[in-house]
Amino acid sequence: MQLARVIGNVVATRKDPGLAAATLLVLQPLSPAREPVGAPLVAVDSVGAGVTEEVFFVRGREASLPFLPRRVPADACVTGICDHWSASGDEVPNAAPSPSARE
Amino acid sequence: MQLARVIGNVVATRKDPGLAAATLLVLQPLSPAREPVGAPLVAVDSVGAGVTEEVFFVRGREASLPFLPRRVPADACVTGICDHWSASGDEVPNAAPSPSARE
Amino acid sequence: MQLARVIGNVVATRKDPGLAAATLLVLQPLSPAREPVGAPLVAVDSVGAGVTEEVFFVRGREASLPFLPRRVPADACVTGICDHWSASGDEVPNAAPSPSARE
Amino acid sequence: MQLARVIGNVVATRKDPGLAAATLLVLQPLSPAREPVGAPLVAVDSVGAGVTEEVFFVRGREASLPFLPRRVPADACVTGICDHWSASGDEVPNAAPSPSARE
Amino acid sequence: MQLARVIGNVVATRKDPGLAAATLLVLQPLSPAREPVGAPLVAVDSVGAGVTEEVFFVRGREASLPFLPRRVPADACVTGICDHWSASGDEVPNAAPSPSARE
Repeated sequence: MQLARVIGNVVATRKDPGLAAATLLVLQPLSPAREPVGAPLVAVDSVGAGVTEEVFFVRGREASLPFLPRRVPADACVTGICDHWSASGDEVPNAAPSPSARE
Repeated sequence: MQLARVIGNVVATRKDPGLAAATLLVLQPLSPAREPVGAPLVAVDSVGAGVTEEVFFVRGREASLPFLPRRVPADACVTGICDHWSASGDEVPNAAPSPSARE
Repeated sequence: MQLARVIGNVVATRKDPGLAAATLLVLQPLSPAREPVGAPLVAVDSVGAGVTEEVFFVRGREASLPFLPRRVPADACVTGICDHWSASGDEVPNAAPSPSARE
Repeated sequence: MQLARVIGNVVATRKDPGLAAATLLVLQPLSPAREPVGAPLVAVDSVGAGVTEEVFFVRGREASLPFLPRRVPADACVTGICDHWSASGDEVPNAAPSPSARE
Repeated sequence: MQLARVIGNVVATRKDPGLAAATLLVLQPLSPAREPVGAPLVAVDSVGAGVTEEVFFVRGREASLPFLPRRVPADACVTGICDHWSASGDEVPNAAPSPSARE
């Protein structure tokens, strides 16, 4: 999974029927230090995340697991909203601040 | 999923029988700000998208879900045509213009 | 899927039994403008492609679909030979020439 | 699989029910020479790994295998804790020191 | 699949039970011209490959196919040992020498 911030959403009236009830979020993947990592992507939502929230998302086949037995043709799905995270060590020496502390 | 623009198509008479009825589109993945992201790829179409349209597509195993119970050996599939999208936040500060407003 | 040129093959007498009857091709992925994109890879063949031919190939789980019910442990498979393709738009403004017109 | 160091964890009270019992670790992928390779990611844990330990993790569909028959929507899972590893050859000429020898 | 050289192995006593009997090899992916391509990774072995041998490996779901019906949580598996390969064309103009001819 990867950390990400929800930065928008997609409106599409012509789409696969399996996505009829899906919310399509635009995510910016983040490093533990909250730096953007890679390009934004589109994910379905299984936890009720909203714009500006920090989440983690799953890619690939597992992205459709939360919707079984419905067949949702998605390769990325928000599966959790982060309360906070920690990251220490060589690459990320400082613990990340709690989301409620960010400006 | 990723945003993309349909930029062409592929004609192939010798192909796997599972692709016999498939339309093969050439896609340029896009960032929310409509900048190209990564290399163009070939995707099958499940929604009737045409050249110049802005779409989102799914990769991997899920790309064959819209065609079940047919077995389509595809790893990328256009699953929706974008009406519009929004993207705000640190990385994409300006909301993207609606597709109908692009030149 | 991705466009590619077949640039060679691999000979391996010690291999997984599921690959016993497989032809192993070396592919160079191509952009629609026929520029190399990324590193060459090894793919199995389901359509009888030969060296120098322009093809498209599928990655991942779908690479083993053309061989079902045989279990072929492959993550890349040539699924079509390109007659020609088109690509227009911001990133690839010129239509690609037909393969028969290339020198 | 890839080598990695556990550098933190994620706390999320709102998450997919399939992740209710999962421990979410933040991993920094490592090269055999212990250099960071790529961006940190979030993985579930199946072996009881803790922060600072050196592990290897699996990506994709296989990340949910250790939890079957539970359906865990994860695309990365720590599946082993490294006692030590060796790596020689053109790219990594020196054998890596044992983890117990690192400062 | 990708070409690679076996450059080491991993010892792990605490690991997922599905990996109990698995040999864990460290691989350096190679281009057809034997240049390293990307970061080394850890793969299970299904063909008895040893350090310094040139092999090809499969990624993703297919990496666990050679072990069915055992459930091996692996995302990379060595599936063949290369006798030799050829690669010609724009990107790799010279045929690669046979492994037995390399110094």
